[in-house]
Amino acid sequence: MTSLQDASVCIVGLGLMGGSLAAALSRTHSCRQVIGVARRAETLSQAQTLGYIAEGYLDLLDALPSSDVVILATPVRDIIAQIGRLHAAKPGTMVLDLGSTKQQVCAALESLPVEIDAVGGHPMCGKASSGLSEADPDLYRDKVFVLCPTPRTSPAAMELGRQLVTAIGAHQLVLDAERHDQLVALISHLPYLAAAALVNAVSEAACEDELVWQLASSGFRDTTRLAASDITMMLDILITNRQPILSALAHAQAQLAQLGAALEANDSDVLVKLLSSARAQRKEMFT
Amino acid sequence: MTSLQDASVCIVGLGLMGGSLAAALSRTHSCRQVIGVARRAETLSQAQTLGYIAEGYLDLLDALPSSDVVILATPVRDIIAQIGRLHAAKPGTMVLDLGSTKQQVCAALESLPVEIDAVGGHPMCGKASSGLSEADPDLYRDKVFVLCPTPRTSPAAMELGRQLVTAIGAHQLVLDAERHDQLVALISHLPYLAAAALVNAVSEAACEDELVWQLASSGFRDTTRLAASDITMMLDILITNRQPILSALAHAQAQLAQLGAALEANDSDVLVKLLSSARAQRKEMFT
Repeated sequence: MTSLQDASVCIVGLGLMGGSLAAALSRTHSCRQVIGVARRAETLSQAQTLGYIAEGYLDLLDALPSSDVVILATPVRDIIAQIGRLHAAKPGTMVLDLGSTKQQVCAALESLPVEIDAVGGHPMCGKASSGLSEADPDLYRDKVFVLCPTPRTSPAAMELGRQLVTAIGAHQLVLDAERHDQLVALISHLPYLAAAALVNAVSEAACEDELVWQLASSGFRDTTRLAASDITMMLDILITNRQPILSALAHAQAQLAQLGAALEANDSDVLVKLLSSARAQRKEMFT
Repeated sequence: MTSLQDASVCIVGLGLMGGSLAAALSRTHSCRQVIGVARRAETLSQAQTLGYIAEGYLDLLDALPSSDVVILATPVRDIIAQIGRLHAAKPGTMVLDLGSTKQQVCAALESLPVEIDAVGGHPMCGKASSGLSEADPDLYRDKVFVLCPTPRTSPAAMELGRQLVTAIGAHQLVLDAERHDQLVALISHLPYLAAAALVNAVSEAACEDELVWQLASSGFRDTTRLAASDITMMLDILITNRQPILSALAHAQAQLAQLGAALEANDSDVLVKLLSSARAQRKEMFT
């Protein structure tokens, strides 16, 4: 199996990420067929009605005989559980996942039978809301799609991953799982915790004066958007990436403490230095 | 002076906030005339060309003889400095400001001669970018506009403030300055510090691995948007609202520490409780 074009692609989990991938592959006719696996029959029929999948199954094991490529698009700990069931896949099956953390997933992929080829994946995109109804065939367009090969990922699997990333309009970035997890802890998981902490800090104060919510403006709205993320997805991320996230958290706490100390000392020079540096970096990233 | 309709309104500072106010008042013909004060002649001519002001002055003192209402729309510490120059205003002049912190501003307003009437103001809106070119006559529409009366603010001044708030489509909320400053420290100034700390934490890590920036997605973009705010404006806010902000910062640090402790202990129950509470509150606020 080296060509995506000839493959029957099975997407496990038809939420925002899996649904958008099914939509993108189907719309661009990038593979022979897209089949879907979901827990609820309603989700499968909705995906079929939308033209995202040709066939749907409630049980992964029923889908495996007709799958050349299996893409796991559920929360991370469910991905790891599903990998345990892929021992039943036919030889030559290629496996990819869309999980947000990669070390534990890649370790699980390594435990698959040798005749099953696998590569870890993580598309760097998302949306405020989740679920199939939010799926968008353009979700991946122009976004970075990380591929994490395991020690025994074959060149054929990497090529198929590359074809998939290209087909959905994304840009491939190859990273090892450990480095990936450290970097996303900072750029993705830490902002989530910060957003949740901000909401909880204001909630605590609101017990004394609930008028505080009436003063919320677009700044608070944007800064806390991630706090509305799906809890199951985020809990799996936190639990499977604990040490990198704890280290990122310590960095953020140190930065907050530095800002607090400068403010406590009424030190405008230090404040301007810290805030200007943040502003310049932020402006360089997003213009 | 009790009617906005008959007043000559002088707006000092034609950036995003002052420029938008001038635009809104001019477009709705809510006052007799809008005049502007800015440091640069170029800003004044731009505002005139856009039809936001009828006349422009480089020096507040030159504008005072023809001003019935003076609205200060510069950074907070500059507002306080300008109030010191309003002793030259004609008797009966009504003063309002748009500063983001109110205790020090209201104290300065109290020091004005008795024949000058004043009320503090703070519209709860903003934009990612600053400057007159970003001004928008609809900036205030449907937003909360806080009015902070001082002990000697007259009913006539409150009525004129109410007329102004209504004219630009905002909703009036009357608060005392101390309570205002405590609440905005939490809902507005704290998110700014969190955004700056996040950017600086990632910057620090980027010294070791600059690839981290390539993994930034819409989540990081939104969470850190406030870090791009104007430094002069934000520094003035921080310096004039130190104690409430330090207290808000302590609340946020405690919340982050709580999340970190639960993660360190691998305690899913506590994590779910903290994260679900944040999610529910966030969803209730912004649907």
